[in-house]
Amino acid sequence: MSAGWFRRRFLPGGPLPAPLPPGPRASPVPYRRPRFLRGAGSGPGADAARPVRCPARGHTLPWNAGYAEVINAEKSEFNEDQAACGKLCIRRCEFGMEEEWLALGSQEFLTGHYWALFDGHGGPAAAILAANTLHSCLRRQLEAVVEGMVAPQPPLHLSGRCVCPSDPQFVEEKGIRAEDLVIGALESAFQECDEVIGRELEASGQAGGCTALVAVSLQGKLYVANAGDSRAILVRRNEIRPLSSEFTPETERQRIQQLAFVYPQLLGGEFTRLEFPRRLKGDDLGQKVLFRDHHMSGWGYKRVGKADLKYPLIHGQGRQARLLGTLAVSRGLGDHQLRVLDTNIPLKPFLLAVPQVTVLDMDQMGLQEEDVVVMATDGLWDVLSNEQVARLVRGFLLGHPEDPHRFSELAQMLVQSTQGKDSPSGEGQVSYDDVSVFVIPLLPQSQGDSGC
Amino acid sequence: MSAGWFRRRFLPGGPLPAPLPPGPRASPVPYRRPRFLRGAGSGPGADAARPVRCPARGHTLPWNAGYAEVINAEKSEFNEDQAACGKLCIRRCEFGMEEEWLALGSQEFLTGHYWALFDGHGGPAAAILAANTLHSCLRRQLEAVVEGMVAPQPPLHLSGRCVCPSDPQFVEEKGIRAEDLVIGALESAFQECDEVIGRELEASGQAGGCTALVAVSLQGKLYVANAGDSRAILVRRNEIRPLSSEFTPETERQRIQQLAFVYPQLLGGEFTRLEFPRRLKGDDLGQKVLFRDHHMSGWGYKRVGKADLKYPLIHGQGRQARLLGTLAVSRGLGDHQLRVLDTNIPLKPFLLAVPQVTVLDMDQMGLQEEDVVVMATDGLWDVLSNEQVARLVRGFLLGHPEDPHRFSELAQMLVQSTQGKDSPSGEGQVSYDDVSVFVIPLLPQSQGDSGC
Repeated sequence: MSAGWFRRRFLPGGPLPAPLPPGPRASPVPYRRPRFLRGAGSGPGADAARPVRCPARGHTLPWNAGYAEVINAEKSEFNEDQAACGKLCIRRCEFGMEEEWLALGSQEFLTGHYWALFDGHGGPAAAILAANTLHSCLRRQLEAVVEGMVAPQPPLHLSGRCVCPSDPQFVEEKGIRAEDLVIGALESAFQECDEVIGRELEASGQAGGCTALVAVSLQGKLYVANAGDSRAILVRRNEIRPLSSEFTPETERQRIQQLAFVYPQLLGGEFTRLEFPRRLKGDDLGQKVLFRDHHMSGWGYKRVGKADLKYPLIHGQGRQARLLGTLAVSRGLGDHQLRVLDTNIPLKPFLLAVPQVTVLDMDQMGLQEEDVVVMATDGLWDVLSNEQVARLVRGFLLGHPEDPHRFSELAQMLVQSTQGKDSPSGEGQVSYDDVSVFVIPLLPQSQGDSGC
Repeated sequence: MSAGWFRRRFLPGGPLPAPLPPGPRASPVPYRRPRFLRGAGSGPGADAARPVRCPARGHTLPWNAGYAEVINAEKSEFNEDQAACGKLCIRRCEFGMEEEWLALGSQEFLTGHYWALFDGHGGPAAAILAANTLHSCLRRQLEAVVEGMVAPQPPLHLSGRCVCPSDPQFVEEKGIRAEDLVIGALESAFQECDEVIGRELEASGQAGGCTALVAVSLQGKLYVANAGDSRAILVRRNEIRPLSSEFTPETERQRIQQLAFVYPQLLGGEFTRLEFPRRLKGDDLGQKVLFRDHHMSGWGYKRVGKADLKYPLIHGQGRQARLLGTLAVSRGLGDHQLRVLDTNIPLKPFLLAVPQVTVLDMDQMGLQEEDVVVMATDGLWDVLSNEQVARLVRGFLLGHPEDPHRFSELAQMLVQSTQGKDSPSGEGQVSYDDVSVFVIPLLPQSQGDSGC
């Protein structure tokens, strides 16, 4: 049984890209434009701003990667960190008798923006599939509810028919708003994408999984959906607000232990459900030691029996904590084939594909030019705290008030800040993991580097 | 199938007790001093300050109900609201070879204070048992870990033996503190008490359940443990802080739906796991309607099939929300025998006895004379918000700076504030439920009405 082998360490070997010249933007690192699974999307290196034809839905999705940069430290397109961003165009549909969904003209489209980071493990396959697929799942899920989203309040019946006169009152009492439909669509899209990845990896004989952190700007709101240990924060002049929580074996201990309590056979007789401060051994037999079970947020003492000497379901501390000795995250996409080394014990039953979604009402925030969301994989947050990142963000934007590419350069600087002594922060942190960063300005920008 | 019949409504028939005269205090309403289950504790009406002999443990527990009053609106000792409070004396024990636990002299006791509110349903039996039992379970659980609590840091081995030199480091890395042992003891005590209630009610052919809200003051910290829909808040001059969350079918929807997803047989073929804004009917068949499943915090639309017309697992809104059409709370003690009316479907699998515990570090708070915790059953919070209660608390204490019984009178005033037009708040709220209130001053008081 090994611990930690699923996180491939990455130390950049060469210099980081030089600051970008002004003018039309190209990603400073190999950047794969999102394309549709089984679609006609073109391969790496193609013009990122060119619209992509989607045969499956028969309409054009004008991806435009030019307004935000994906900075991921010179990694190849087969790196375990993958990213996607672009415009998200949602068809407005009508309910008909024969053909349920009738697409209207393009002027009826609801348009949003989409950014996504995927941190793969066990190879890049799941992360690549997710970068190619999730936006498509999300568009489909949003199109299925868009009639409800554009109504003053989501109707109980999507058709708008009112079976009971008091139907609107029931919806009102539940407090259901358009944003709840977007949250539901994000949750369903993650699950749909997870199923697609499972099928595709099985069909191609590949394996692996990935975390997923997605931001969607739609109807004046920013939705941040997270499944895994990436992180998004809001940075304003006087505010730092976490927009996501990390999902790891430690943060989801009670859910995971509860599942093992309900289905002990998932442990294959090899693991103990209980948590101890360290793995127990023969000398501990018969002693009373600190432990936690699924129903406890506090700690108690229990007398050690033989069964307690098994390997713990969740073991290790902080970044070293592992689920079944194998995986450092408890939510994400893929991992359908993942088994504990040298056993037939699957990890998947303990993993959730469903994200936690946070909503930012941008219209109500009195946004300033320098208000940004920073999204990054765990490689950044392992060595920089929210406060350190916020300090770097504020300092950089203050020093570059006019630069049209300042948000891309800021993302690049943040990656560079994880590369040791010569880093801009001067604090000498080194991240040995992949690092990918988005910096999203929340106010529409007038230049090429503007955000959502 | 009925909804809501488990909450017995209570409308006070007579006038509330007149304000109490200064001097030695007696509860203004029949107050049952906690006694030990199967113990020699005396019956209702006995001197509440007299120490009680506990034969089961063979030591004296000096209950003293004089320093805090239980105000519960003239209800009888068989009312569904029950309360308990008193000193909590925990033996310090030593680890020996022959006799594991050796009690030391009484000067070695660790002393705390305990307040508890129990809101019964389906009769008062469970609430009465809980008021008589829970403090005893808690004392037993605390005594089992007290060696760890009084150590500089809880040792990995309760005996203090160090099997590995790095054992203290493992405990340090997990961040385990004495307060985690108290939290664990509270969690285990609730579960133990739930088992006792199950056995006792079955043996006596009785039924019912209750919520439980407990505050424990120990080693400079206040622990608030809640299972149900009672509430505790901290009120200070410039702060109102909730110290508990309510556990109802609505707030625990995802946990409850998840269980029904894992064990569909728990629904007995009579209920649907899905949530809809209202109960669906024949006219909805084939339509796409708003719904939520266990993995969703947002909403989606689904096409209605026949199975969706069943009664929902969780139905109703706000105070009317019911689990399996029966129960308004999702955590608490008892209910082992509870079945859905006219069926054999048990409620208990969906209920949790485990509380959520909040910790207040009183030593670090710079407490003032007027800083109090208000604990009350849902009857108070149904008609008064946290802010309204805080306003009443601050106004009353400002107007009664010297009165030695002011905290008791304040509790009484808060109950009175739920009784309609003549209420002190003048806002005309009427609570038709039982109302029980504790007001706990956080600074030790010099007079008879002083708190923890």
